[in-house]
Amino acid sequence: MNAIDLILAKRDGGRLSDDQIDWFIRAYTDGTVADEQAAALLMAILFRGLDPDELARWTQQMIATGTRADLSALDRPTVDKHSTGGVGDKISLVLCPLVAACGAAVPQTAGRGLGHTGGTIDKMETIPGWRSTLATDDVVRILQDTGAVINAAGPDLAPADRKLYALRDITGTVESIPLIASSIMSKKIAEGTGALVLDVKVGSGAFMKDIDQARDLAETMVGLGGAHDVRTMALLTQMDVPLGRTAGNALEVVEAVEVLAGGGPPDVVELTVALAREMLELVDIDADPAAALGDGRAMDAWRAMVRAQDGDPAALLPRADEVEVVTAPSTGTLSKLDAMAVGVAAWRLGAGRARKEDSVSASAGVTWRSTVGDHVEEGQPLLELHLDDPDRLPAALAALEDAIEVSPDAVAPPPMVLGRVT
Amino acid sequence: MNAIDLILAKRDGGRLSDDQIDWFIRAYTDGTVADEQAAALLMAILFRGLDPDELARWTQQMIATGTRADLSALDRPTVDKHSTGGVGDKISLVLCPLVAACGAAVPQTAGRGLGHTGGTIDKMETIPGWRSTLATDDVVRILQDTGAVINAAGPDLAPADRKLYALRDITGTVESIPLIASSIMSKKIAEGTGALVLDVKVGSGAFMKDIDQARDLAETMVGLGGAHDVRTMALLTQMDVPLGRTAGNALEVVEAVEVLAGGGPPDVVELTVALAREMLELVDIDADPAAALGDGRAMDAWRAMVRAQDGDPAALLPRADEVEVVTAPSTGTLSKLDAMAVGVAAWRLGAGRARKEDSVSASAGVTWRSTVGDHVEEGQPLLELHLDDPDRLPAALAALEDAIEVSPDAVAPPPMVLGRVT
Repeated sequence: MNAIDLILAKRDGGRLSDDQIDWFIRAYTDGTVADEQAAALLMAILFRGLDPDELARWTQQMIATGTRADLSALDRPTVDKHSTGGVGDKISLVLCPLVAACGAAVPQTAGRGLGHTGGTIDKMETIPGWRSTLATDDVVRILQDTGAVINAAGPDLAPADRKLYALRDITGTVESIPLIASSIMSKKIAEGTGALVLDVKVGSGAFMKDIDQARDLAETMVGLGGAHDVRTMALLTQMDVPLGRTAGNALEVVEAVEVLAGGGPPDVVELTVALAREMLELVDIDADPAAALGDGRAMDAWRAMVRAQDGDPAALLPRADEVEVVTAPSTGTLSKLDAMAVGVAAWRLGAGRARKEDSVSASAGVTWRSTVGDHVEEGQPLLELHLDDPDRLPAALAALEDAIEVSPDAVAPPPMVLGRVT
Repeated sequence: MNAIDLILAKRDGGRLSDDQIDWFIRAYTDGTVADEQAAALLMAILFRGLDPDELARWTQQMIATGTRADLSALDRPTVDKHSTGGVGDKISLVLCPLVAACGAAVPQTAGRGLGHTGGTIDKMETIPGWRSTLATDDVVRILQDTGAVINAAGPDLAPADRKLYALRDITGTVESIPLIASSIMSKKIAEGTGALVLDVKVGSGAFMKDIDQARDLAETMVGLGGAHDVRTMALLTQMDVPLGRTAGNALEVVEAVEVLAGGGPPDVVELTVALAREMLELVDIDADPAAALGDGRAMDAWRAMVRAQDGDPAALLPRADEVEVVTAPSTGTLSKLDAMAVGVAAWRLGAGRARKEDSVSASAGVTWRSTVGDHVEEGQPLLELHLDDPDRLPAALAALEDAIEVSPDAVAPPPMVLGRVT
């Protein structure tokens, strides 16, 4: 087998055979195929695509470079959620314990933030003591005890993806629907979940800027889940406006706890409940997640989940030394609060990282008192910038330059759920 | 400057700026840009192309990684020829001294063979004593004395091309018209010639299989020559049938010497004279190359050229130990003698190399007594396979399996010149 044959076949619009795919994924993972040959193949795939059979095989082989966890010993069905990434997206923190409280097990493998989007692991790590590196035995035990776990990807979870993703990141081959789909789904399938709800974000702060692309990605991933016996569906949800009222690691944990306590921003509650309903339906559990948020069962599950991973749910979280306020420029209805701008500002304040190796600040971030559709008065505090390093302020303010618009007319907040793919 | 920005711009159909091109060519040549990023950019260029301004800049910057030779001290105009490569193509061996005999200087930089196509340097090196590694001072001196030189590319001749070509070779990015054109033209422009005739081969034994592709390549290269003040034109010539009667290093030198002596196969004479006429016209020399072949002036120039590079024009050339004969399968007109099959057979007999580092046999190769359009009798000797290593015979015979067809009807030989691009 020869990498050039695969490159030429794909470059010229042909199919890769099962044997070619199996060989390439293995040979690239073990270093037999050079980075430059893999880069050329990935770029050819970006232009030519992979058909559903090629993609299923590609994903299967990525999983096979590691092991697919077996969660069949649990006494309840497993279901997980994956978000393609947005700004202020702390949904997993509420959703995992909420769905656990309703009777399913949520074996979530989560990632760290990169660029303007945050990561669930970074957020959870602001909780003193909490740790994300669990062995499979621990995952099973905690799932059995508490019904929810949030774990970082271990070395055995589709190791091919780590290498392929790092290569895509530096070769301009991230934005390929089949490559995105195989990267996400290889890890989700390998984690062992029996069902999966995808939250595919659409808008300025999302990876997918338009709904057609997002639907294409959602359909591709739902198909891949089916090909691997994981019951999968997707919601397409808006990401022009950031979620909730906070973007930043500890800030988002605080907001998530408010939602678990029965309060919190209505958009976070709406999306969490919508996703929980889909998850429970996939595993045939008839329960009302809104009730479990309201009566404290979700909060109990949160505390059990945090404690099971050695975190202290009662601990005070880190707070930034400095808070800078940005005021409303005029009186009217907030008509724009740009998700990308807010995400970049939070990142520049220290909440995000440019490279995988960078550390993040627990306390830095952005909060906003009003969101799109709310009435604001000129000069009222609108945004708060939380930071420990004053040098970071100018770049964050620059990111927010065109982030806000106030309209003299009434403006409706954007609908949360834009579509549904099953 | 960042390689990813260039990759994304080209991937998404945009232009590269002059600064980006200058930076990339320099940074890739000096190792600042990684192979995998260059591979991704080359694949994006293969899909998206380079516009004429991008390509001129790209080529100029490739030249600028080395030095463009200055041949202005010569007392006559300089003109060179480049062939895109075919089977049995020994034209340069005759053409360089012929054009020199007519009053121009031919500063030919030539390459070695790869795959089924031979290389001029490999052929010349079968002449005892002849050497191809001349310093620029020697090139100028020999050109002044004899009017012709055949030299291997030195380290200063567009060094970016060496690195880019090696990468293209292993990443499936050879077949890009702008990348082919910049590779050829960067070296031809850097060698210092004032005018250039391109012999763009079309057909089974050529790199370009169809005339439209070949014309596109020819037009691109002619445009590039003009952008760098090199008067450039191209002939499109047939390569379905191999040239002359020999394919193999020493075998082709012998045939070239026959042509220089006023004999030799008519197709070699025809193409050589056609190319010589174009070369002389480009530099405004009014001379008859056919006469110079007939009256011995071309042969005198050949001997002077060979001697100037320490070769012995009177020396006997290596001959193979063994000659295997393939006979005509039936009586009629030879209607097919496939150039690719003959080229692959010669390569497998030892005349060619699979990788740049391989050595080649001086004596191995294929000769044919008849060509397309000739009458043949069943059982008459048709091909001779020259070899030193009997183990190589079966693979060479296998390559020739479908190489020959004999027709009961009259068949005209294919026209040599298929088009002209100025």
